[in-house]
Amino acid sequence: MPAAAIAAIHETHLKLQQEGPFSGQVNRWLQREGALTRTAIAQQLGVTADTITLTENVTVGCNIPLWGLDWQAGDRILLSDCEHQGIVATAQEISRRYGVAIDVFPLLATAGDPVEVIEAHLQPRTRLLVISHILWNTGQVLPLTEIVQLCHQRPEPVWVLVDAAQSVGMMPLDLRATGVDFYAFTGHKWCCGPAGLGGYYGRPEIRDRVAPTYIGWRGITLDAQGQPTGWERDNRRYEVATSDFALMAGLRTALSLHDQWGPVEARYDRICSLSRYLWDALQQVPQIHCLMARPPASGLIAFQIFQQQQPSPRHHVRLVEDMEAAGFLIRTLRYPSCVRACVHYFTLEAELDQLVAAIAEWVQEQRELF
Amino acid sequence: MPAAAIAAIHETHLKLQQEGPFSGQVNRWLQREGALTRTAIAQQLGVTADTITLTENVTVGCNIPLWGLDWQAGDRILLSDCEHQGIVATAQEISRRYGVAIDVFPLLATAGDPVEVIEAHLQPRTRLLVISHILWNTGQVLPLTEIVQLCHQRPEPVWVLVDAAQSVGMMPLDLRATGVDFYAFTGHKWCCGPAGLGGYYGRPEIRDRVAPTYIGWRGITLDAQGQPTGWERDNRRYEVATSDFALMAGLRTALSLHDQWGPVEARYDRICSLSRYLWDALQQVPQIHCLMARPPASGLIAFQIFQQQQPSPRHHVRLVEDMEAAGFLIRTLRYPSCVRACVHYFTLEAELDQLVAAIAEWVQEQRELF
Repeated sequence: MPAAAIAAIHETHLKLQQEGPFSGQVNRWLQREGALTRTAIAQQLGVTADTITLTENVTVGCNIPLWGLDWQAGDRILLSDCEHQGIVATAQEISRRYGVAIDVFPLLATAGDPVEVIEAHLQPRTRLLVISHILWNTGQVLPLTEIVQLCHQRPEPVWVLVDAAQSVGMMPLDLRATGVDFYAFTGHKWCCGPAGLGGYYGRPEIRDRVAPTYIGWRGITLDAQGQPTGWERDNRRYEVATSDFALMAGLRTALSLHDQWGPVEARYDRICSLSRYLWDALQQVPQIHCLMARPPASGLIAFQIFQQQQPSPRHHVRLVEDMEAAGFLIRTLRYPSCVRACVHYFTLEAELDQLVAAIAEWVQEQRELF
Repeated sequence: MPAAAIAAIHETHLKLQQEGPFSGQVNRWLQREGALTRTAIAQQLGVTADTITLTENVTVGCNIPLWGLDWQAGDRILLSDCEHQGIVATAQEISRRYGVAIDVFPLLATAGDPVEVIEAHLQPRTRLLVISHILWNTGQVLPLTEIVQLCHQRPEPVWVLVDAAQSVGMMPLDLRATGVDFYAFTGHKWCCGPAGLGGYYGRPEIRDRVAPTYIGWRGITLDAQGQPTGWERDNRRYEVATSDFALMAGLRTALSLHDQWGPVEARYDRICSLSRYLWDALQQVPQIHCLMARPPASGLIAFQIFQQQQPSPRHHVRLVEDMEAAGFLIRTLRYPSCVRACVHYFTLEAELDQLVAAIAEWVQEQRELF
C-alpha cells in the first residue's frame, strides 16, 4: 500500500470518530463513499457502478454466485485444475449439499488452446465454468472473451465465474466486451489497496439468477415498519453489513496514484516487459526451470529448483526463507510445487538483477545439496 | 473508538507494509494476532478460543449457523418480533430455498415471561430459535439460560441462535453457563472497537451440525499438493479469507482500555444506573413516553413522542435531526417507531441532563405542531 493510501485510511478513521460514528451525517457520507468506490472500481473494469458489489475479499466475491445459483441435483460445475483452494473447497461443499458434480479440466499440463480444452470438457448438464483470468501459479492469461463465447453459445448456456485475484489492477479490462457473467476480485494485490476490501461484478442481465445468500441491512429494502420487502435493485443486494468503511478511501487513493503514473495499458506493458526480463534472467541460472515455456503476459513468474531432474519442494521452501532474510519477498506454491515472484510496473530492473544474482549465488552455495 | 485503538490500527498498517505485506514473517505474526484476538474475545464471553470465529460483523456471524444447518423441508424457525431486519431477511431466504416455515412470536407487546411466550410458540418441527440477548429496540434483556434450557429440553432439541449485537461489551457474559448454541456479535458497538471486526461463538459439541457455507483459505486444511482435505478443527473453519487484519489490534486495545476502567460487572452496573437516570428524567418531559414501563437493564433507552395519543414517526425523525445538530447522537427505529438513546459506562450524568434539557426545550418549541 502506498503511504498516501495508509494516510487516507487513518484520516478517515479520525473523521468517522470525530463526526460520528453513528450520526446521520456520517451515514450519508458513507453512502457517498460507497458510491464513489463502486464507480472507481467500475471504471477499472469497463462496467457501470450498478453491477459492482463491495466485498471483503475475492473469495467472498466468488462465493456470491457459487451459493446464489439455483443448483439442481445432477448439475455440473467445470473447474480448471489451477483454481485456488478456497474456490475448490466451496465447489466441493456445494457438490455435497446439492448433488452437483464437479469436473476438472487440465490447464497446467496443456500446451494447447484453452478454449478447445474447455470445449472438450463441457457436458450437457454443465451449468457453471470456474476459471481464473490469470492463473495464480503459472501466470498464464486465459482468453476470456473466446471462453465466454463458447460457453454462452451452448444449447443450455454455461455461466462463467472468474477468479480475478490476479488480473484486476494488472491488465486493462473491458468486462462488458468479454460478456463474462461473474467476476470476483480484490483491491489489495495488484491495485495496491488495503487488504479487506474487494468486489464482485455480476452481469446485470442475469442478476435475478443469483439470489443473495449471506444477507444483511446493506442489501435489502424495508417498509415503513422496518420489515424486509426485497433486494436493492443493483448489485448492492449482495453486500451484507458493517465493514471497515475507511478502507474505501485507501483503495481509491491507490487507484488514483496508479493513474498518475500512466494509463493501465502502459503499466501492463511495463509489467510484461519486466516479467520477460526476469524470465530471461532466471533461465540462465543453473538448476532453475521456469514453469512456462515462454514468459507469461503477466507479472507472475513461477520457477522450480530441480534436483535429480525433479522439482524439489524442500529447496523451494528454503529458497523463499533465505530470500526473505535477504529482503526479497517471493513465495512457494504447492501445485505445482514451485516458487513465484511478482513484478509490478514500479519494480526496477536493478531489483530484478539483484534477485537473480541472489538466487544464482544461493544455488551455488547449495551445490552440495544437489 | 478510543484514540489508542485508532493508533493501534494505524501502527499495524505501517508495520504490515514495512515488513510485508506478503512475507512469511508477517504471515506468522498475523497468525499470532488472530490467536490473541480470539483469546481476548473468548475471555469476554466465558468460553475457550477454539469456539470463536472472527467475522466481519454480527450479521455474518448470524448467517453462519443460519446457512450451515442441514435444513429439511417442513422444518420451522421461530423468531421474535424484535429481530434485526438483516436476520429476518436471511430467514426468509432460507424459507424460500428450503421450504422452511417461519414463525414469529410477540415480545414487543408481551408483558409476561418471555420463556412462557416462547414455549407457547415452539412446534414439533421447530429446529431453531432466533432471539437477541438484548432487544435492539426496547433494550429488554432476555433470560438466556432459561430460554436455552427450555429449548434443549424439547423431545427434539431446538438450537438457539442469539443476535448479540447489543450484549457483548455491555454486560457480563458466561456463555458456557447459558448453554447457548450460536452467539454472533460485533466489536464496534459496546466494545468500542473498529467497525468491520466481529465474531461468532458456536457451541463445540454441535460444531459438526453447522457446515461452513462461505468458504476460503482461512477455514480449510490442505494436502501437500494444495488440495482441500477438510475443515480447520476449531471454529476458524468458518473464517473465509483476507480481512483488514489491522483491526484486530484496534479491538484488543479497546477491550483492554475498558478493563483498565474497571471490571465488566462494575461497568454494567454503571450503565444500568445511568440508563435508569435517563429513563427517570425522560418520563418527566411532556409528550415523551418511554417504551418500557420500567428502566431496562441495559444501556438502550427508547422513547416515543406522542401526538394526539399516538407515536409520531415524523416527530421522531425531526427530533433526531435537531439533536444531531446540537451535538447529541440518538437515532430513530421503525419498529416500533421510536427514538433510541444509548448510554455507556463513560457517559456523564451531566451529558444526560443536557440531552433531556435539549429534548424538553425542543418539545416546548414544537408545541404548535402538536
